[in-house]
Amino acid sequence: MADAERKLSNGRNRIDFQTDPSKYRHWKLAVDGEVATLSMDVDEKATLFEGYELKLNSYDLGVDIELADAMDRLRFEHPQVKVILLRSAKPRVFCAGANIRMLAGATHAHKVNFCKFTNETRNGIEDASKASGLATICVINGTAAGGGYELALAADHIMLIDDGSSAVSLPELPLLAVLPGTGGLTRVTDKRKVRRDHADVFCTTEEGIKGKRAVDWRLVDEVVPGSKLEETVGKRAREFAARSGRPAAGRGVALTPLKRERSDNAVEYGTVAVEFDRARRLATITVRGPEAAPPASAEAMAEQGAKFWPLALARELDDAILDIRANEYDVAAIVFKSSGDPAQVIAYDAFLDANQEHWLAREIRGLWKRVLKRVDLTSRSLVALIEPGSCFAGTLAELAFATDRSYMLIGQLPGDNKPPATLTLAAVNFGAYPMSNGLSRLASRFLADPADLDKAKAEIGKTLDAESAQELGLVTFALDDIDWEDEIRVFLEERASFSPDGLTGLEANLRFGGPETMESKIFARLTAWQNWIFQRPNAVGEEGALRRYGTGQKPGFDTRRV
Amino acid sequence: MADAERKLSNGRNRIDFQTDPSKYRHWKLAVDGEVATLSMDVDEKATLFEGYELKLNSYDLGVDIELADAMDRLRFEHPQVKVILLRSAKPRVFCAGANIRMLAGATHAHKVNFCKFTNETRNGIEDASKASGLATICVINGTAAGGGYELALAADHIMLIDDGSSAVSLPELPLLAVLPGTGGLTRVTDKRKVRRDHADVFCTTEEGIKGKRAVDWRLVDEVVPGSKLEETVGKRAREFAARSGRPAAGRGVALTPLKRERSDNAVEYGTVAVEFDRARRLATITVRGPEAAPPASAEAMAEQGAKFWPLALARELDDAILDIRANEYDVAAIVFKSSGDPAQVIAYDAFLDANQEHWLAREIRGLWKRVLKRVDLTSRSLVALIEPGSCFAGTLAELAFATDRSYMLIGQLPGDNKPPATLTLAAVNFGAYPMSNGLSRLASRFLADPADLDKAKAEIGKTLDAESAQELGLVTFALDDIDWEDEIRVFLEERASFSPDGLTGLEANLRFGGPETMESKIFARLTAWQNWIFQRPNAVGEEGALRRYGTGQKPGFDTRRV
Repeated sequence: MADAERKLSNGRNRIDFQTDPSKYRHWKLAVDGEVATLSMDVDEKATLFEGYELKLNSYDLGVDIELADAMDRLRFEHPQVKVILLRSAKPRVFCAGANIRMLAGATHAHKVNFCKFTNETRNGIEDASKASGLATICVINGTAAGGGYELALAADHIMLIDDGSSAVSLPELPLLAVLPGTGGLTRVTDKRKVRRDHADVFCTTEEGIKGKRAVDWRLVDEVVPGSKLEETVGKRAREFAARSGRPAAGRGVALTPLKRERSDNAVEYGTVAVEFDRARRLATITVRGPEAAPPASAEAMAEQGAKFWPLALARELDDAILDIRANEYDVAAIVFKSSGDPAQVIAYDAFLDANQEHWLAREIRGLWKRVLKRVDLTSRSLVALIEPGSCFAGTLAELAFATDRSYMLIGQLPGDNKPPATLTLAAVNFGAYPMSNGLSRLASRFLADPADLDKAKAEIGKTLDAESAQELGLVTFALDDIDWEDEIRVFLEERASFSPDGLTGLEANLRFGGPETMESKIFARLTAWQNWIFQRPNAVGEEGALRRYGTGQKPGFDTRRV
Repeated sequence: MADAERKLSNGRNRIDFQTDPSKYRHWKLAVDGEVATLSMDVDEKATLFEGYELKLNSYDLGVDIELADAMDRLRFEHPQVKVILLRSAKPRVFCAGANIRMLAGATHAHKVNFCKFTNETRNGIEDASKASGLATICVINGTAAGGGYELALAADHIMLIDDGSSAVSLPELPLLAVLPGTGGLTRVTDKRKVRRDHADVFCTTEEGIKGKRAVDWRLVDEVVPGSKLEETVGKRAREFAARSGRPAAGRGVALTPLKRERSDNAVEYGTVAVEFDRARRLATITVRGPEAAPPASAEAMAEQGAKFWPLALARELDDAILDIRANEYDVAAIVFKSSGDPAQVIAYDAFLDANQEHWLAREIRGLWKRVLKRVDLTSRSLVALIEPGSCFAGTLAELAFATDRSYMLIGQLPGDNKPPATLTLAAVNFGAYPMSNGLSRLASRFLADPADLDKAKAEIGKTLDAESAQELGLVTFALDDIDWEDEIRVFLEERASFSPDGLTGLEANLRFGGPETMESKIFARLTAWQNWIFQRPNAVGEEGALRRYGTGQKPGFDTRRV
């Protein structure tokens, strides 16, 4: 199996998740009143890695990073937009999906992480519609194959041009012996509710389905003759805009570039600091509480813009997580710490609660929801160290609840006069930030007895010391200063000694107890099957279909069913 | 990766799923009124394959085949039993789980199938409690490690002896770099509702958890001092028996040995015939309708015993499926056909409906439910050919609804005077046989629009021809005799040409749309992660933990997280 690192193009040594429209190579974003047009126009030379070309609007992670950025900008910089038209700027092709050469040469870890990010971006498109009233209409003007159709599946409405040849397809299985990588199977059955036998035919038909059958089988919402396409697109855009609850708000907030100072073993953002201990395979992320009280009004919040503490922190934390995921495969565990005044953190939560009708407050809470989900889905052991001087309160307490284990110090450490560690709950911990299983982190934690959730709720606003937090079940272990260092050292060493793959599977199962949603099915069930198949010789072996694609040689399969 | 076939012991050339208590090597079944004691006493020499010994009550598939048989016998042969005491006959060890040497040397396909069968057996233990009032109390007198604890997790009540050393554990990750293979993680979070951080500690602690902490963390229901164990076991047995709804019925029905005549390319059972077309990688299973009308009364049904058509067919079909799964890895697709009089099939369904309060009717329906689930979970492409002379009606129609695709012939074939194909729905198609997602096969089929389910319901009892069946969405394709042979030939050839692994993943996802249950989470989510990890070099590579276990050498891991 080709599992050597591929070389990033243009001499880059890290994958960077920060961009802005002035740097886009693959997308065009045009805003016209309530309607934005997001046109895919992939520059085939502008690849993330060396060794392939992005023909036919096929994509790699670099293309998706721009898409994710465009979605964030539509949310924050263009609050008046109610409908996104997702289109192709190329003739007769919408999108050919993930680039096959890129996949064939990528490491297993990159493939899996690439799929995770594209899944998160598609979920973000759906979330923009559901949570923010920002609907997406996908206009398919030609081939939408594989990841191209999966992108369409994220839209609220799929239009397919009726020209006798344009089709939608998921040809991964017949063509490459893998599964669609970005939620396609689950969205086909659970979102579009395509009948299972039709789905079977569809997913094994290389050339896809077009015309009336595509509508009858629920694969698209309508087929439209080319001559009527623009007129119908305009009509649909007006219809969706009329249904949107997005406020016709005023000025947006510019998402200014993040300030990052990177050294060999650290990244300093401002509200977030990351330290790498490479010998111990650890990354420590410290989130910092606000330095000042919340602004006096929603207008003052908008005035602060990207500097407003909750927004700045969410963006920086998101980037830190993505950077570790994509660039630091050797990190076994992420340790979350915090520093600051818990009362100020709670004051910001109260401010956002009080202004929850304001579009910007809503978008900030939505961004936090997505960033916290990103943490949940990060395939590294997660641990919170709740120490003197920390501020795990309200929104920041969610980080502790997202971890696999949390340790809280009882009292102070010798020779340290920082105030003893506390944990403070706020209303925001009981529903504002659902996990991908649809439950809050505390509800997921207290599946056994809802009374435990009520007990926690009764403590909202109280400053909980380590023993109280443990008594309430909010932390895993409360330790005194005698045990603290040794216990944590042993735990982190142990974690680094386990099989990384075993931990990935273990954590993916233990983190998400209870109910399932389409989103959790995509990340848990489908992703696991994809990962399995992405490792099988029939796909990635010397004679595997993914390796042989385009060579003219037929793949050689081990015919045993497993 | 060691993926060569291992040699079956004692010169056997197939894995046989049929046994009976007189042949048991690993279990002792003792029935005393309402209470049965099922004692695990594994004969370490009586292995299924060569090359390992089953020390410390560790098990291989052969051990589990006996357990599954014992459960069936308790259901059918001992209807008066209300409680099963699941115990070990060995001192200081309950069960050490799946045998590690066996796993380390097994093919990937065998490992996956072994886990599937043990999962089905554990689900059967839970189903016996829920559906038949046959509760299980697990008495742990020593170590219950890995699969040993997973077996306990299937029980309604777990008792652990409090002797200062006996513990429950899931040491797979720290010891072997794999996940527990039989639903352990899901049952820990979703059945026992162990808090996720406690689960994290538990599943990474090789030596397990004992005493009060095991109760506090919900891993067991009670710890009992050795001196009080027997007294407490008796008390619990009486409590569970008192709560059971199982009728204190009379005589059981003997599950007489199946008659099977095997030739190179066929197996003839009586109500079931299997034909292998090895060149085309097909197995055709023909189920035969009843030869006579249903008996006149429930008593007459009990008199017929194992010969009663629905019971005989369910047992034979189950064996045929298991045989293909375990012994015919090269079969790409299973083709279901039927022959007989649909009216008689419906008459049997009506008979079972009319006698649904009778314990035997209930057990037969329960067996069909489990056999049909076994079909759903069979990792081969499933297709139904609904032809002239067939009897896909009521219960047998479920087989068609379980397939990935169904083809139905319009009219007759030239030169064939068998009556045109029909499909007949019965009440039993609307809830008696839920899939592992909790929905009936028709409800799973019509997720998009419940009105389609109502339309189908309105057709109960009507004889539907091919075009009506297609119109109602009950079959995938209705074809006339001109297209019939070619279409099916091309489809089956295509199916055999695809990657077996890709199909496994595709079908596992498309078959189970909609809601999830603990059972579906085990089979879909957890199984996929296990399969993935069972392929990773960190587990099964030359330096992998599973390969190196017991050699004294530490495993060597690729430290990259995926």
